[in-house]
Amino acid sequence: MLDQARALDAADPLREYRSRFELPEGVIYLDGNSLGALPKATKARLSHVVQREWGSDLIRSWNATENGGDWITAPQRIGAKIAPLVGAQPHEVIACDSVSVNLTKLIGAALTMNAGRTVVLSEPGNFPTDLYMVQGLQARGMAEQRLVARDKMIEALDPKNGGRDVALLMLTHVHYKTGEMFDMAALTKAAHDAGALVLWDLSHSGGAVPVDLNAAGADFAVGCGYKYLNGGPGAPAYAFVAERHHETFRQPITGWMGHAQPFAFSDTYEPAPGVSRMLAGTPPILAMAALECGVELMAEIGMDRLVAKSRALSEFFGAAMAQHCPHMRCVSPADPAQRGSQLSFRHAEAYAICQALIARGVIGDFRDPDILRFGFAPAYVSFADAAGAVTALAEILDSGEWDAPEFRQRAAVT
Amino acid sequence: MLDQARALDAADPLREYRSRFELPEGVIYLDGNSLGALPKATKARLSHVVQREWGSDLIRSWNATENGGDWITAPQRIGAKIAPLVGAQPHEVIACDSVSVNLTKLIGAALTMNAGRTVVLSEPGNFPTDLYMVQGLQARGMAEQRLVARDKMIEALDPKNGGRDVALLMLTHVHYKTGEMFDMAALTKAAHDAGALVLWDLSHSGGAVPVDLNAAGADFAVGCGYKYLNGGPGAPAYAFVAERHHETFRQPITGWMGHAQPFAFSDTYEPAPGVSRMLAGTPPILAMAALECGVELMAEIGMDRLVAKSRALSEFFGAAMAQHCPHMRCVSPADPAQRGSQLSFRHAEAYAICQALIARGVIGDFRDPDILRFGFAPAYVSFADAAGAVTALAEILDSGEWDAPEFRQRAAVT
Repeated sequence: MLDQARALDAADPLREYRSRFELPEGVIYLDGNSLGALPKATKARLSHVVQREWGSDLIRSWNATENGGDWITAPQRIGAKIAPLVGAQPHEVIACDSVSVNLTKLIGAALTMNAGRTVVLSEPGNFPTDLYMVQGLQARGMAEQRLVARDKMIEALDPKNGGRDVALLMLTHVHYKTGEMFDMAALTKAAHDAGALVLWDLSHSGGAVPVDLNAAGADFAVGCGYKYLNGGPGAPAYAFVAERHHETFRQPITGWMGHAQPFAFSDTYEPAPGVSRMLAGTPPILAMAALECGVELMAEIGMDRLVAKSRALSEFFGAAMAQHCPHMRCVSPADPAQRGSQLSFRHAEAYAICQALIARGVIGDFRDPDILRFGFAPAYVSFADAAGAVTALAEILDSGEWDAPEFRQRAAVT
Repeated sequence: MLDQARALDAADPLREYRSRFELPEGVIYLDGNSLGALPKATKARLSHVVQREWGSDLIRSWNATENGGDWITAPQRIGAKIAPLVGAQPHEVIACDSVSVNLTKLIGAALTMNAGRTVVLSEPGNFPTDLYMVQGLQARGMAEQRLVARDKMIEALDPKNGGRDVALLMLTHVHYKTGEMFDMAALTKAAHDAGALVLWDLSHSGGAVPVDLNAAGADFAVGCGYKYLNGGPGAPAYAFVAERHHETFRQPITGWMGHAQPFAFSDTYEPAPGVSRMLAGTPPILAMAALECGVELMAEIGMDRLVAKSRALSEFFGAAMAQHCPHMRCVSPADPAQRGSQLSFRHAEAYAICQALIARGVIGDFRDPDILRFGFAPAYVSFADAAGAVTALAEILDSGEWDAPEFRQRAAVT
């Protein structure tokens, strides 16, 4: 298996990109879908922003300076760089706040635009924060959460089944646990036919799988900066608003940075043009600088190459697992075009097995209650990594070494 | 004037702290109330977080590691360090999101707790984002903004004047333009007598003037991380919730990080205990690390020494201005106990004068339409800085050098 992996690595068109990341010795990192690795360029860039732009130029760096600066345009500038990764126009995407906060803004915007309808339709088991945001609005009488299984989603949009109540269809494109991927175009069309707007959460998609928001006719989207975009722990998120809504959408967190003229310090809110009105408070510039480095690297590689590598990696890993760990049940779709850049396996002892793997330097992750998840960040994971992980897992399962008290003890963050 | 300043610097108990900051050569920085200077410790700390915690330990750093990590507790840990600077208990403060987003959370919480009342009372000319947040809720029928002049505020809380409608009194403790300071205890008591809750914006207070939230009986507060706390450009903000509300308050941005068990990935939101439910999305760890360094330095100096220095500096500056720039009209209160750590002056040509000062390396700031503002960050501003700024300003006014086209041209960020 390792020979085959090495041959694939030698022929990999992305093989040079691995050296653009800091990857610790002795670690196989299959958790870039939870926290992307550190691009080497980020270190120098952050050091520059801290020492020169903050330390030397101080407040002047909000405007463009000889050292760079131009902090004030960072949200739009980074958004424009993310846009081609998700099939959007540059002025339709902005980097700001967290996925959670951006969900609140866009759910709020959709409910206002679709006045008279209050239902937000989603699936049980969606990433929790997406559902919690609807529940927060529901507690204030602003929304009604309706959850239906993914295979009943189009049916639920039918007027006969209450589809006329649906203000917003809110789905996560790639499921965080299983990697299942929705057909974005088909579901968007079904929602529009029912008079609903659509909000896609791209947290597990952007930078890993093909996304074409405008081809699908999507209204809104949010996505995560710290997974496949390699923006650093808790990196700012991004949001997409289709151009056709730029004049009309109103989001509820109406902060001064989203004002048409923030530095006029007017008493009266007036939204900035277009997607800029998504801004609320002052953006965290250090975190934005790291995000920009990660995004630039992904944009340099380009989605076509990232997607091809992702599929090849997960296909190789899946085949190796079937051969060497036949008792691990894969819960991700078999067709790589229908799943995210990950493979997930169900096992009653998934937590302890995950810890035993980490003890051997193989980092995947566990998702409650019984999922062992391996992510294939295409920019830096090698086929040899995939082979090494399968070998380690096979040994752990054969030896039973996972069955130890230290591997059963739950950490604060799992 | 410079001799007197040098004597004051020589006797300054904080004189050693100036060297704990990066301050560029040839610059007099009187804008720490807009962006605090860079603590030297921040550079090393950020480098460690990037290289070791993110680069080497990757996802494992969410838990405590040999290299540090423990990212998951950063919001509470940093909040606890801010608490003594604002008269709060450690478990009443949390670092997260921006001031704007935290305002939305706490205004929402107050309106829910004070059901039946919808008015948010504030003053015209409050910092814009505070008012805009109320307007965002008002556009959704959730709140009603009522603005009254600051000297009529207690009157407006009288039941005879509609005080019974007031759900929340929301004020900025120190006014960003003029430096005027509200009597926190008196206004909080008046609001409580009227059955209203109180939310204080401490953005221009925390780390600069005495604040005792619990002595005043405050309900809620927000504050800024990038001004006197020196947390870096756009640093995360902080929020305070009085312990007596910990069981009952509910904020509307119900994200997964504010869930009682985020890693159980339940479909149903259940708020975390106490102030932790203020969290929404994943915190920006790089920005949090920088904030923590700034906060630690302020905590090391301590509020008593910071306040004493701040008052001495602004008194010195005010006296020098009266002598050397008698035509600049001070709009800040004369009593240093009734103002923030700043002095503001009104002049029809304030913008051009501010630019001419910056060209000479004296950085204050301009606030639309006619305010020239000088902030005295007590940890690193010297009396010699203050003297140098007054001298430069006097020369600029005498020579008329501000009256040049390049000084009238407005930048994107003023």
